[in-house]
Amino acid sequence: MPELRKDPIIGRWVIIATERGKRPSDFVGETKEPGDRFCALCPGNEAKTPPEVYALRPDGSPPNTPGWRLRVVKNKFPALVADERLKQTSTGVFDWMSGVGDHEIIIETPHHNTRLFDLTVEEVADVIWAYRERMRALKEDARFRFVLVFKNHGAAAGASLEHAHSQLVALPIVPKRVFEEMEGARTYHADHHQCIFCDIIKQEIAAESRIIEARDGVIAIAPFASRFPFETWIIPQDHHSSFEEMEDYRGLPQVLRGVLRRMDRVLKNPPFNFVIHTSPFGEDTQAYYHWHLEIMPRVTKVAGFEWGSGFYINPTPPEEAAAYLREASP
Amino acid sequence: MPELRKDPIIGRWVIIATERGKRPSDFVGETKEPGDRFCALCPGNEAKTPPEVYALRPDGSPPNTPGWRLRVVKNKFPALVADERLKQTSTGVFDWMSGVGDHEIIIETPHHNTRLFDLTVEEVADVIWAYRERMRALKEDARFRFVLVFKNHGAAAGASLEHAHSQLVALPIVPKRVFEEMEGARTYHADHHQCIFCDIIKQEIAAESRIIEARDGVIAIAPFASRFPFETWIIPQDHHSSFEEMEDYRGLPQVLRGVLRRMDRVLKNPPFNFVIHTSPFGEDTQAYYHWHLEIMPRVTKVAGFEWGSGFYINPTPPEEAAAYLREASP
Repeated sequence: MPELRKDPIIGRWVIIATERGKRPSDFVGETKEPGDRFCALCPGNEAKTPPEVYALRPDGSPPNTPGWRLRVVKNKFPALVADERLKQTSTGVFDWMSGVGDHEIIIETPHHNTRLFDLTVEEVADVIWAYRERMRALKEDARFRFVLVFKNHGAAAGASLEHAHSQLVALPIVPKRVFEEMEGARTYHADHHQCIFCDIIKQEIAAESRIIEARDGVIAIAPFASRFPFETWIIPQDHHSSFEEMEDYRGLPQVLRGVLRRMDRVLKNPPFNFVIHTSPFGEDTQAYYHWHLEIMPRVTKVAGFEWGSGFYINPTPPEEAAAYLREASP
Repeated sequence: MPELRKDPIIGRWVIIATERGKRPSDFVGETKEPGDRFCALCPGNEAKTPPEVYALRPDGSPPNTPGWRLRVVKNKFPALVADERLKQTSTGVFDWMSGVGDHEIIIETPHHNTRLFDLTVEEVADVIWAYRERMRALKEDARFRFVLVFKNHGAAAGASLEHAHSQLVALPIVPKRVFEEMEGARTYHADHHQCIFCDIIKQEIAAESRIIEARDGVIAIAPFASRFPFETWIIPQDHHSSFEEMEDYRGLPQVLRGVLRRMDRVLKNPPFNFVIHTSPFGEDTQAYYHWHLEIMPRVTKVAGFEWGSGFYINPTPPEEAAAYLREASP
């Protein structure tokens, strides 16, 4: 019997098609093997990228030279431009805003053939810390209301470069999905005087069936109304609304690395996306919003039904997905 | 200079990345040539599908035999099941509903290698009429609140069968995207005492730049805040809130066929999805909602940024897309 489930935060309904329950082997990993073409993100090619804005490198080594462990550069082909004033106008029903923003590439490792989840826990912690530092720097710019940190892994997930990297886009607006989450969380808080994410964590810990991993203050769950097979959310167990205001991420590097390694085992190097949902700058969301990281393996094609309706068909019940991932070795 | 644009109905912002403006030749059509494997939708194989629920066939010819021009059957692998009572429960923060619904396949032509837009205008009109008749039939079922009509063309758009077909899913809930549109349209109507879709049409006719085709009471436009390159909406110019209550679709078959043929010319048989957005059953939306059909060519990969934010990067300004499509011969 299939089920319809409602995301408690933004009200999005999902079909959990239990009858068609797909196993991991029904999905083929399709990420290509790394090739040996020229790579602008590799050490030695620092001059081929825009200048670095952040790097982890040996003391005294000059910027934009080899020797770095991690490097952040501006995107050479940014979706938004940084050197403009923010302008907003409207014409009749249409609102228009100048495309002011920033777009950076976090090069996670100097090694071309190493994936994020092949790194050590300490190296993954460096990547997370780089996200934080860049978010804090971009927050100083009064034009920006939000910084979206995300990663595309594999061509089918939209990665156009093989070399392991994440991206960061600073925006003058709050993205719709985050805005909807905030609205949902605000309403829930008004009704229940609780954070909905905290209540979800409590309920998931009691239910157990959707937990993938929990360690050192960080929990990974298959969300109740997962849109995609093996979708996973990583959430700090204590209440924190802003990612970049954390002083200690505790188990995050280990849990993120662990979940990605479990997915690699179960789904054979699947293409995936992840994205950090956090509070917009300058809004007091502390009472009700709770930052988290959403991982979406890209193992099914999203068709007209989903695009056209915002209503997803997920062939793998999240409880089964969680069981597969939980049992895999990280 | 890229632009940020806001969809006036649901408030979704889009980047129009003018600087990266992609031309049609940058996108490759990837729909496969039809093969010659067994096809359950072809004439002679009527016994391989569930029994037909609607057909256009010569007078006196028995159901589920060859001779039909168009045929509607239940989906053999439905996403939802029809023979259940609607149950709803909640556990803590989670809402759950039984997966009650219906799922039908509209076989648009008996000819395996003919695409929807290869049909005559009269044959396309038959397909549209079949949507209407099935929606009216399913509306009788009190469990259903919405019928979503959609089409996936090409494997990359999620079509798993080659033979030209559309689909229809009856749902006990209103899909999120449609709900958001209704909310946006309701708010606009409260403020302006006008239908926002009617106001958009008026403004587009005055602006001209985003019109692709307009004939016989039906207009095709590239929406101001298009999410995807060459996204096109087809809208009746007169105000109508419910697709299935139309008595005369006037120019719709010709405009739908024309737009798809223009896309075929410009984008070389691209994969695409289309979907009809119409009023939920049993809601009085007549004052403010306006049904329409949204066509989304699938020529770019949607990556983490879009998934994670609900915020789309569209590399082709809709004015350019409209110009290409307008100039192509239908």
